[in-house]
Amino acid sequence: MFRTHTCGELRLSDVNQTTTLAGWVQTVRKFGSITFVDLRDRYGITQLLFAENLNEQLDANPLGREFVLQVTGTVNERSNKNSQIPTGDVEILVASFTILNKSITPPFTIQDDTDGGDDLRMKYRFLDLRRQAVKKNLELRYAVGRSARNYLHEKQFMDIETPFLIKSTPEGARDFVVPSRMNPGQFYALPQSPQTFKQLLMVSGYDRYYQIVKCFRDEDLRADRQPEFTQIDCEMCFVEQEDILQMFEGLIKRIFKDVKNIDYTESVARMTWEQAMWMYGNDKPDIRFDMQLCNLKFPAHSFPHQTDLSSLINGVDFKVFDEAETVIAIAAPGCSEFTRKQTDELTEWVKRPQIGMKGLVYIKYNTDGTLKSSIDKFYNEEKLKAIAQAVKAVPGDLILILAGAEERTRKATSELRLHLGQQLGLRKTDEFKLLWVLDFPLFEYAEEDNRWVARHHPFTAPKPSDIQTMIDNNPVIESAADYLKHPYANIKANAYDMVLNGNEIGGGSIRIYQKELQQKMFAALGMDEAEQQHKFGFLLGAFEYGAPPHGGIAFGFDRLCSILGGSESIRDFIAFPKNNSGRDVMIDAPATIDDKQFEELQIKLNLK
Amino acid sequence: MFRTHTCGELRLSDVNQTTTLAGWVQTVRKFGSITFVDLRDRYGITQLLFAENLNEQLDANPLGREFVLQVTGTVNERSNKNSQIPTGDVEILVASFTILNKSITPPFTIQDDTDGGDDLRMKYRFLDLRRQAVKKNLELRYAVGRSARNYLHEKQFMDIETPFLIKSTPEGARDFVVPSRMNPGQFYALPQSPQTFKQLLMVSGYDRYYQIVKCFRDEDLRADRQPEFTQIDCEMCFVEQEDILQMFEGLIKRIFKDVKNIDYTESVARMTWEQAMWMYGNDKPDIRFDMQLCNLKFPAHSFPHQTDLSSLINGVDFKVFDEAETVIAIAAPGCSEFTRKQTDELTEWVKRPQIGMKGLVYIKYNTDGTLKSSIDKFYNEEKLKAIAQAVKAVPGDLILILAGAEERTRKATSELRLHLGQQLGLRKTDEFKLLWVLDFPLFEYAEEDNRWVARHHPFTAPKPSDIQTMIDNNPVIESAADYLKHPYANIKANAYDMVLNGNEIGGGSIRIYQKELQQKMFAALGMDEAEQQHKFGFLLGAFEYGAPPHGGIAFGFDRLCSILGGSESIRDFIAFPKNNSGRDVMIDAPATIDDKQFEELQIKLNLK
Repeated sequence: MFRTHTCGELRLSDVNQTTTLAGWVQTVRKFGSITFVDLRDRYGITQLLFAENLNEQLDANPLGREFVLQVTGTVNERSNKNSQIPTGDVEILVASFTILNKSITPPFTIQDDTDGGDDLRMKYRFLDLRRQAVKKNLELRYAVGRSARNYLHEKQFMDIETPFLIKSTPEGARDFVVPSRMNPGQFYALPQSPQTFKQLLMVSGYDRYYQIVKCFRDEDLRADRQPEFTQIDCEMCFVEQEDILQMFEGLIKRIFKDVKNIDYTESVARMTWEQAMWMYGNDKPDIRFDMQLCNLKFPAHSFPHQTDLSSLINGVDFKVFDEAETVIAIAAPGCSEFTRKQTDELTEWVKRPQIGMKGLVYIKYNTDGTLKSSIDKFYNEEKLKAIAQAVKAVPGDLILILAGAEERTRKATSELRLHLGQQLGLRKTDEFKLLWVLDFPLFEYAEEDNRWVARHHPFTAPKPSDIQTMIDNNPVIESAADYLKHPYANIKANAYDMVLNGNEIGGGSIRIYQKELQQKMFAALGMDEAEQQHKFGFLLGAFEYGAPPHGGIAFGFDRLCSILGGSESIRDFIAFPKNNSGRDVMIDAPATIDDKQFEELQIKLNLK
Repeated sequence: MFRTHTCGELRLSDVNQTTTLAGWVQTVRKFGSITFVDLRDRYGITQLLFAENLNEQLDANPLGREFVLQVTGTVNERSNKNSQIPTGDVEILVASFTILNKSITPPFTIQDDTDGGDDLRMKYRFLDLRRQAVKKNLELRYAVGRSARNYLHEKQFMDIETPFLIKSTPEGARDFVVPSRMNPGQFYALPQSPQTFKQLLMVSGYDRYYQIVKCFRDEDLRADRQPEFTQIDCEMCFVEQEDILQMFEGLIKRIFKDVKNIDYTESVARMTWEQAMWMYGNDKPDIRFDMQLCNLKFPAHSFPHQTDLSSLINGVDFKVFDEAETVIAIAAPGCSEFTRKQTDELTEWVKRPQIGMKGLVYIKYNTDGTLKSSIDKFYNEEKLKAIAQAVKAVPGDLILILAGAEERTRKATSELRLHLGQQLGLRKTDEFKLLWVLDFPLFEYAEEDNRWVARHHPFTAPKPSDIQTMIDNNPVIESAADYLKHPYANIKANAYDMVLNGNEIGGGSIRIYQKELQQKMFAALGMDEAEQQHKFGFLLGAFEYGAPPHGGIAFGFDRLCSILGGSESIRDFIAFPKNNSGRDVMIDAPATIDDKQFEELQIKLNLK
């Protein structure tokens, strides 16, 4: 061992002990004939004092930032204590030292507020990882994983490894494939998730399975997506939706407690997908703050159970609202005094291409109870007041209204709500609000193929009350224009998403476990029997041999860690992430391969 | 929840409780008007009693093997108790039941001694996994993993995930590669191990890293090798060999205790590679039994430090020994009474092509002290006795002698020793003997390229005393014939293998952490500077910024589990293994991919 102690461990009680430390030189400071060095390792920082007697040796072997140093000396009480660090009461009076390795000057400073840009830090990730800020993230990641494993172990889940070299069955996202040298012309695929394998484990009676496992998706990378990512993947036998919700809100609460010391004792909020879309315009609402949507106008088929409020805005010949499919208002609390500049900025914000609205209507509900709007020409104060009441605005609020096509307007209002929430400081990084979103539609309509696609995945069961509808009806859509009238359009999935602070951190479902229902599902997705057999014959086969009712969930581990760490970026919580082109710029991968490899794999390039 | 209890949980103390169970029908037995069913789940088996009142319903819904059944009833004390199972004191008097799912007849019986052959069981692995024998293996695997994680956590190791999509740097084994759609013409590789990444984590100061991680090797599969396999992968900073040995024999001892309840308190045996080859003919000796090799003749350059015993066999004009490069004897304890048939069988055994010897010499050391051999013509009793003494044989032993070329003879003697150990019951599956093998040669000679190859891998450091030899000498081998005279031939690696019962379960080394030494190593392996930069530029770069002394080890998780489970086959300890052609016969992978996938990846087949 190159050390007797770590750099985080010595205290006043160790004074006069002889110690050997090893670590990295964080700083070198000379005070007259004395040299102070801060020595850093994973566990902390300890101050070293090189007295005059070592100066000759120091001159011959000058120390630099990030040198690897081993010192032996005596633990002394510091005269000038540093209460910021646990080792701040002591320093080591160095008797002898050895430079174990040198360092050239790092391309950026190894500090929390580094001067290194993103590209530079990624290229030298091994130096970036030395920064306390990044180290804390990886420590948090380890703590989250360990907490999850402990909880799941106590609940009798078993970690069972599923294979990485499987079969390509693209359905939705693209697979990464791996040519098989031993089976020329054939390819493995890397799993997008262990979905079918964990279901087989349920068929095999393993009852409770989990795995913290890498998954792979070959997608064009949006910001903050990674081609390889990690899931906490779980599955249970003999359960209904309620069992899963209880079990896994328990998991997240345990992680809160273990990792953040937060007692999340309240029960987790729940809402249906329809409620979420209606109240927040979004299937993963951030419920840390209120500011709910007021749907002044909406297409009846989208929300068949909701009350029409359009009388509040109709009849004044205001074309923007009259011609819009959807009109939605929100009330920004305490913003009635926004200046013209501020409302103009909001208007510009919603007109950005990413949001894509034509404009923004506002109503100031002044603290004196009067109302002033950008649509005073059309709406008198009484009408404005009625709208304000519908939005549940109070004096002092600023009401913002967007109008346009349903999907875009709803999404824009949701974005505007989040934008304002951020601006008003309502989205606190140290506040955590969990939410279950339930009752998703089972199917989405794929216009290009005039067929259904599975909103979650093809293994998700319909709600028990919708099973018969699914079995009794032909999935074929006779008339594309009337797809909404097809009975399948209203089937709800027995699925659930867990949302944390406006981020989907997990999702799952009760699965289909009956062969006939699974075949019906595949057929609905446009798979004929031959394709069903080729892709999922093993699963349909397994369902013939006593498949139990089962369901599960998968959590996005990277995302969960980043939210718990108070960061927007999952990349900060991955030791060696890839950039937006899927490249690892540190090792420079992907890269070309040798001719011999092409030859052995019996493939060649076919570049466009 | 479909149940209130599991099938493994009810006891006498639960009598009169109402309970709901769910599970699989293991057996159905009719006794007159009463039906007994054994209901099975992961946790156990509970007996169900269907009384006469349910017969009508049972006739309408007959139960079959592997049906999924839910029953509600009352816990009763059994009159006819079964002490073999923990639930054997009770049975459930069924009040109502529901068949949750049916099963067609399984292709083999779901029992420990199944009638299913290997191929059938692999095709229906989801049924095979239901067998208690297989379930126990996966439970053991989970227990080993959990024990390892707990130990490593307590020792301040951090689980840090390393990437799966990396760069191909084939050195030894072949990489699996993954075409990158976003970077046409370029490929990722799947890691053969996280070696360079864990070293970078040490450079980054993470101090103690571990991961239980999948690795990939595209090799022609020998029996019991898998293209994807799992390692317990560990690395530590600021350590010397002794620290690693202590830390990781601690790990294995902890696993023994947690998983097998074995107190392995004795210190782990150690021997050098040379001793292992000398005494056992093998670098992973099974030391559960003695039967050491007696080297009667050997090439001096192979064992420069050993005493020559050839006078014992020379001078009698026995050509078989005189012309052999190597002559090795072993004494099989208590086998002097072997019949002619038995010695003939042994002779046939060593003549098999896998062993490849020409014959076998034997000396019977009878219990009366007399000696009788197959070479009496050449060796008188006195000479035989001298040989017997050299072999440390005692009356009652059978001495077996092999002669031939060094490598083949040594290997054959080792195999013969293991074969006899097995035959004599000396290799007990419930006995566990650990061994560290140390001081391997750093290099092996590659005849075809007249250069060195790394015996372990290119990141292994030489022993401290050999570093200067490595630095001071040119790695180029001037004369192929004299390669043994090159100073590099005698450099020992700072490496260690952990051997359990004759199996290598782990191996590792102290790593090179100095750029110049690493470059020297790469050069010795025939890599010019451009190739070094292309393949390992990131590592050489990292070594410039303060790389600490470090070392580590990786355990073969599949193998470790199989030995602890008393099995020869790692496949029995993997949930979804592949066959010897790398195929998953259950899901039928690898398989062809779509034209669209080829097009997007910009590759095409180039079949021979």
